[in-house]
Order: sequence, then C-alpha cells, then structure tokens
Amino acid sequence: MRCEVVAIGTELLLGIIVDSNSSWIGEQLALAGIDSLFQVKVGDNFGRIEGCIRQALERSDAVICCGGLGPTQDDITRDVIARVMGVEMKRDDAIAAKIRHMFEVRGRVMSVNNLRQADIPVGASPIAQMPGTAPGLVCPIGDKVIYAVPGVPREMKEMFTGTVLPDLRRRSGQSAVIRSRVLRSWGLSESGIDELLTDRMKELDTLGNPTIAFQASGIDGIKVRVVAKCDDEATAKTILDSEEKLIRGILGDAVFGIDEESMEFVILKRLRETNRTVAAAESITGGILSSRMSALDPEMQTFLGSTIGPDIGGPDHAASSPDKRAAAAAARVRKQYGASVGLAVVAARTDEGEPFGTVYSAVSTGDAEHTDRAVMPQDRSRVREYAVINLLSFARRVLK
Amino acid sequence: MRCEVVAIGTELLLGIIVDSNSSWIGEQLALAGIDSLFQVKVGDNFGRIEGCIRQALERSDAVICCGGLGPTQDDITRDVIARVMGVEMKRDDAIAAKIRHMFEVRGRVMSVNNLRQADIPVGASPIAQMPGTAPGLVCPIGDKVIYAVPGVPREMKEMFTGTVLPDLRRRSGQSAVIRSRVLRSWGLSESGIDELLTDRMKELDTLGNPTIAFQASGIDGIKVRVVAKCDDEATAKTILDSEEKLIRGILGDAVFGIDEESMEFVILKRLRETNRTVAAAESITGGILSSRMSALDPEMQTFLGSTIGPDIGGPDHAASSPDKRAAAAAARVRKQYGASVGLAVVAARTDEGEPFGTVYSAVSTGDAEHTDRAVMPQDRSRVREYAVINLLSFARRVLK
Repeated sequence: MRCEVVAIGTELLLGIIVDSNSSWIGEQLALAGIDSLFQVKVGDNFGRIEGCIRQALERSDAVICCGGLGPTQDDITRDVIARVMGVEMKRDDAIAAKIRHMFEVRGRVMSVNNLRQADIPVGASPIAQMPGTAPGLVCPIGDKVIYAVPGVPREMKEMFTGTVLPDLRRRSGQSAVIRSRVLRSWGLSESGIDELLTDRMKELDTLGNPTIAFQASGIDGIKVRVVAKCDDEATAKTILDSEEKLIRGILGDAVFGIDEESMEFVILKRLRETNRTVAAAESITGGILSSRMSALDPEMQTFLGSTIGPDIGGPDHAASSPDKRAAAAAARVRKQYGASVGLAVVAARTDEGEPFGTVYSAVSTGDAEHTDRAVMPQDRSRVREYAVINLLSFARRVLK
Repeated sequence: MRCEVVAIGTELLLGIIVDSNSSWIGEQLALAGIDSLFQVKVGDNFGRIEGCIRQALERSDAVICCGGLGPTQDDITRDVIARVMGVEMKRDDAIAAKIRHMFEVRGRVMSVNNLRQADIPVGASPIAQMPGTAPGLVCPIGDKVIYAVPGVPREMKEMFTGTVLPDLRRRSGQSAVIRSRVLRSWGLSESGIDELLTDRMKELDTLGNPTIAFQASGIDGIKVRVVAKCDDEATAKTILDSEEKLIRGILGDAVFGIDEESMEFVILKRLRETNRTVAAAESITGGILSSRMSALDPEMQTFLGSTIGPDIGGPDHAASSPDKRAAAAAARVRKQYGASVGLAVVAARTDEGEPFGTVYSAVSTGDAEHTDRAVMPQDRSRVREYAVINLLSFARRVLK
C-alpha cells in the first residue's frame, strides 16, 4: 500500500508557512506500515494541482490532499478533485446546515462564500469529524482513493486519525505494525554514540529489523530512535524492549529517558517520587529552564520558582570565582523558596580566563553544594539551551 | 525563470525531520522574483530521485537538490545527477584535499568513505563555499541547471546565498525585485483586522501590486505582510513605505513593530532610549517572558532580571484580589531589582469567580501601579504565551 501526500497552498511554496503537516502525516503512515514515497507541495493553481493529483494516483494507491478547502476563491481543492473524478459538484445540505449552525453558535454573521464549502464532488463522502467549517472528503476513484483534509493542523489531525487512517488500514489489509521508541541521551557526543553503536548497527544492517538512527536535538539531547516492523503489537514491544536494554547497556547512564521524557520531566518525576521540591537561579539561561519546568508543573508544586538576573549569587559574590558564585546562588535560592533542592547556572566571564561558552552548574541539597564545569563552544543561543540540559543532567547525577 | 526544489532524504518522508529547508529556499526565491511552482520530497532511492529530477528539469529552468551529499552509502544525490547529466564521476583532488584538511585540523581520523564526497559528475563545478565536508555542486545541463546543496541548514544557506542565488539571478536576467515588510499587531482579532482591511484589500486586488495577507502568529502577534514587486529597489521601498503608512492609519496603535521587531524588542528599545530599566515577576508565564527578554539583552543591562513563582506578590497577598496581587508583584520586583519599571502577570484563580484564562497584568513605574485584565480562552500553553505579549503590550501603552 502506497500513499502520497499533496500539500496545497501558495503560502507553502513562498515559505510563509512551513509544511509540517506532511511530516506529521508521513510519520503516522510509517507507523502504520504504509509506504509514502513522495510528498509534493503545490500552489493554488487548478492545472498544477490537477497534475500533481493525477501523477500521485498513477504511482500510489491513495492520495491525501492537504489544504485548499476553505471558503475563499483560492480554495479549489474540491473542484480539482471533481475534475479528476470526472464528476459534477453538488451541494450537501447536511454540511450546509452544519456550517450555518457553527456561525450561529459563535454569534457571527455568515457570508454566502462559506456555503461553497458544502459543495462536494458527486460520489465523495464527507468525513464525519468536522472541527472547523471546512469538511474533509473521502473520494473513491476505481480501486484507489483521494482524501481531502484542511490545512489547519488541528483539524487535519482529527480527520486523519478519525477517518483517513482507519480507512487506509481497511483498504491496505496491512497487518504489519511499525513501532518506534526514542532513547534520549546527554553527555556523549554524536560521534561518540556513533562509535559506541557501530558494531550493533552493522549487526542490525544484516538482521534488517529493528533499525536504529540518531539525531542531535539541542536542548532535548541526542535521540537514538529504534524502529521495529512486526506482525503484531506484542512482538514489536518485545523487540523494542530488548533493543532498548541492549542500547542502555552500551550507552550506560547517558540515556536519561525515552520518547517524550525530557530532562526536566525526568528531574521533576524523581523529585516528586521522593517528596522533594526544587527552585532555580538562572543567569546565562535567563528563564529558559524556568519556562520548561513550569510548563510541566503549572501549579508550581514541585518547581517552586526561580530568580533570574546577573547577580544571582548575591551582591557579595560578584568578585568570587564562577564555581563559588554558582554554589552560592544554588544555596541562596534553595533557602529563599524553602525548597529541598536549589539549582543554579552561571557563565564564567572571559576576564576570568575561561573560554566563551564556559558554564558552571550547581546543585544545593542542604547537606552540600555540588558544582560542575562545562564548555559549550557554540553561539550564544545554543550555549543558553545546552546550559539548561547540562545543569539538569548534573542534577540528575547528584540526585541519584 | 522557474526553479524547483527537490528535498532528498527518507527521514523527511518519515517525519523524523521537518523539511524547513524548502520553505526557506522558497522564500528566498520569491524575494528574488523567481517562480517556484513545485517542491518535492523524495527518499534515498536512486530511481525515484532520478524521476523527480528529470520531471523538475522538464517543467522548470533550474532544480535545487537539497540533501544526500554526505559520506555514507545512502548519500546518492551526486550519482543520480551524473546519470541525469549522462556523464561519469571523477574524483576532484582539490575537494579531496579540503576534506582531508578538515579532519586534520579537528584532530579526527578520516574514514575512507569521506572521500566519496570528492567524487563529482564530469562537467559539474564545486560551489566555492564549503562550510562542512560536503561540497555543493553547480551542474549545467544544456541551458538548464541542477544545483546540489547539503541538507544541513547552515551549510545549505551559506551555499545558496553565496553561489546558487547569484547564479540564478545571472541566468534569469531577472531585474524585478520583490520585497516584503511585515507589520506586527496586537490587540485586534484576526477577523477584526480582516474587516478593517477589507476595502484596501479589494483595491489592491484590482491594482495587483502590492499584495497584503495576514497570519496569526501566537506570541509574535498577528502579522500583516505586504509584498511589492517592482523594477528596482527604490520603487519597492516607496511602495512599502506608503502601504505601511496606510495600514498604520487603519490599524492605528495596534501595530507595534515591523519585520523582526518582537514586542519585547520594542519595549527594550523604548526603555533604552529613555535610560530606564525593567524587572519582571512571572507566575502563570513561568519564565517565558524572561527567556525572551534575556535573549535580546544577554548582558542584562536593561532587563535586570525576574522572580518566578506562585506567590510573586509576596506572602501577605495570596488572599487579595488578582489585580492587587499583580500590582503588588510589579511594585515589589521593581524595588527588589532597583529597576525603573516593574512588570508582573498573574492568573486569576477559578475560585475567584473568573473564567479560565483570565490574567492580570501590572506595570509599576514608581509613581503608580497600572493594572489590566484580559481573558484568553485557549489551552494553558497558549494562555501562557498570550499572557506574555499581552503584558508587554500593556507596558507599551503605559510607557508611551
């Protein structure tokens, strides 16, 4: 089963909007074991959209058209599909009523344009999910199919998950499942991981399943992604579990979490499990750590807060060495917020004889202040991001 | 002149990497007045890459291939281009020497694979810029051309700007310039802006030049983008200046900046110009405001710092109303940091009879505390972001 994505909209070609929809759809298709060999972006032009859809239908079994379903004159995806199907357009009264109703409940006047969205190709079925005013469509052509979904990501995702994917699965009779697991690491370089995993990757090249690949992801660490293709869910899980165990054995403690577990997630989880709280003092990182911690703990019950400024170690400490400034800041903020743990990160000044990108992390636990030095030879924006994950990684080691 | 982008890499189709390169290139081409009617993503497969390049060459004058230039067996873009050109590959000794040298200066052992990158199609010229080990290529085919650039964004951009774009301009003889200006606004809804600009947009539909379009951009406000296509730079500037003036006349004070001027940029600029400083107290926004202010003022000379926590108004204020809590927090943080201006934002609690998403902003100037109430009926993550720009927008009005 092959499925192709055609993303429609001149604003995509002009770079005004980045086409993240196709990437998301591609990932979902891959996880469902459906091949997606091409993805095309095309502007709001009848002939060119038609050409792309016809070509996609030739080389694939299914085509997902994304975008161009709105109420304006630019939105011509419905009309092009009718041409490709060789049918007329017909107003769908049920959809028209839904659209009218949506405007009514929002207390807004509906311009007549909006009813264009209720005109659909004869033979097409509207997609049941309709979170906005643009209806999605399932349009069969012989034994192939065109799906039309809106470009608004939230609406597209709801229709894809609710209708398109189940329909694709039914058509493909595909029983293979593809499952992936991401191991997140920090503390090893990308080439270091490459070297450590090279033997295992060669073995897997021969075995063919699972596959592993890695990707540096800034403040989210270096990700090692394992993908398994199997006949059933249980086998996929067994393979992923066993591969995870093997990779953890090789990379050791550098692996801090899996899938969506960010470093701040891991730290907050550990603190919650041991009934502890944390507060932070940020200089160079200027609030990035706080914004990420507070996103995961909006009531601020474990992450109690933070202090941001150039002199977080206190007025007397400006003259002391950067490790002492960091330690003093961590101790100070811990007391200030009455937290179990204080975290701090400061940059060394170049007049202290340290290279640009040198940061000192400190963790205060009440019993002691632990400090750590690291150099991140990058631009300032990346130094800020790396300093956050580096501090949290240090805290993870200290709070073991 | 038509130029098509072919992005190469299986990881793009699988959604592991979002193809932001094509968007960036599309924007640059548009600004240079070069049409880009299709953009295609294809995996690391010889036949399929070849098909995409041949099709692109049929319908366009130039093709930019992005990705697949690395040292591994997967990286076959060079080989495919040689096939399309109908020529052999030949090792380029100068490139081989450059690659060897790069490994030497980094003190790393070079595996022999890396020299594959020095094999280029006969008749192709290497691109002078070579920030990584992957050389870019200019490959003429009759009166058309294929460019090959790496998928690493930094390397791609350097080669595109330094060689590809100048070469395209020379080939196109294109003298038209396309220039754009973004007006950023806050305080009007998207549909409100639509209504206010509807007459002007109709006029421009008839005139054809410039064009305007708008786009809601979260914490960056609602952007109104004006695009002018002219024969020369001076005329483009005149048209953009005049359209900016006209739109400012219609939208009034809701327009806070142009192009890359974020709301925090505008506030910091105003404070610097009047020799004032600022400190902030964040509860619901949890550090987002601080991270954005500190990114623009890394030495923290105008933005002096902030305090983040649930009780930023002080321990006594937990019982008071949310506007009083915000005012107290703004006054408190101003004093604490010795700043000219204190900013604070707090969320009303639902037990205070306020709907979810109600935030109070406060600006303390020493003379007085100003407060403002706003309701953002969205999910928590968007409430956090909107609360930041809303507070800064309020500060902009107070600090006039």
